Amino acid sequence: MSDSLDFYFDFSSPYGYLASERIDGIATKHGRSVTWRPMLLGAVFQKIGGSPLVNQPMKGPYTQHDMLRSARLHGIVFNVPDNFPVNSIAACRAYYWLVESDAATARDFAQALYRGYFVENRDLSQPETVIAAAKALGVDGDALVAAVQDQAIKDRLRAENDAAIERGVFGSPTVFVGDEMFWGHDRLEMIDRWLETGGW
Amino acid sequence: MSDSLDFYFDFSSPYGYLASERIDGIATKHGRSVTWRPMLLGAVFQKIGGSPLVNQPMKGPYTQHDMLRSARLHGIVFNVPDNFPVNSIAACRAYYWLVESDAATARDFAQALYRGYFVENRDLSQPETVIAAAKALGVDGDALVAAVQDQAIKDRLRAENDAAIERGVFGSPTVFVGDEMFWGHDRLEMIDRWLETGGW
Repeated sequence: MSDSLDFYFDFSSPYGYLASERIDGIATKHGRSVTWRPMLLGAVFQKIGGSPLVNQPMKGPYTQHDMLRSARLHGIVFNVPDNFPVNSIAACRAYYWLVESDAATARDFAQALYRGYFVENRDLSQPETVIAAAKALGVDGDALVAAVQDQAIKDRLRAENDAAIERGVFGSPTVFVGDEMFWGHDRLEMIDRWLETGGW
Repeated sequence: MSDSLDFYFDFSSPYGYLASERIDGIATKHGRSVTWRPMLLGAVFQKIGGSPLVNQPMKGPYTQHDMLRSARLHGIVFNVPDNFPVNSIAACRAYYWLVESDAATARDFAQALYRGYFVENRDLSQPETVIAAAKALGVDGDALVAAVQDQAIKDRLRAENDAAIERGVFGSPTVFVGDEMFWGHDRLEMIDRWLETGGW
């Protein structure tokens, strides 16, 4: 079993954001690390159909209520962004460019993007938002702008999406503990227990 | 706020079954009762689209794994029935006939049907299964056979389905604490906390 948990998420996913605020703490408690793996759920929808949760009839209004209730329960600041849901392709490409040179900064960058979007209402779909978040962490903005247009980075993101889908990921957040897959923010307590007990 | 929780479920729903084994205990702990409200999720699918979870690509195989894992975590016996998922229209009609004269027996009947299906592999779609479960509780089998063909009972079930959908129910299980809606077996801990704190 790999020492590191794999944390798959879409930057536009509210439950992914909630999980992002808790997953490192849960892993650390059990001496484990977390590999953050942003992806585009749109790639899943293209493959098997589907649509963002909040756009679905009946389920949409309920989940809008539930995500706010879940955030309050865990003391996580959460504001529904004006532009929601959004396409986060620039954010994902920037992440996979950054992670090759500096995984720790890439993780902080992802967290900053999530908080900017779900706390401060910064439009994640805009390249300027992505660039500003990177610059605030000391990343070279011009290099980032060039990178997200680079075919190699575009291919990298596509490969990451394909690999996630191949592994069975269909929703955000999804966490793997070794080969054990957990879907949903509401599985974090189960993950905690799994790490504690080694599974059941 | 009503004293009784409303517990909506489809007899063919594995997560509904898991919740049925725990919801009364959670309610009782807080001095509350539970009104069991079987329904046909097919009525929801007709209205807004959708299909049984286990038939969905990618999500299906995962949930089959997760429901067994969730059952083991809570020490609930769970076996995937040979005929699954099934239409539970006879079971629902029998329940709503029975509940008019004896709510306590109707609840025990619903539990017996769930356990018969998910523990002992008794085919819930067969009227004989429904009749046998009722008879075992001392219910008049001939009266039940007549009742499930009665137009008034058919109308009652349709009205129950319509009312559930009108209230926002789109999945099984769904629990209401007063007007607060909780969807999913994985919300039972949240319900427990809601009952304890009065909400947040």
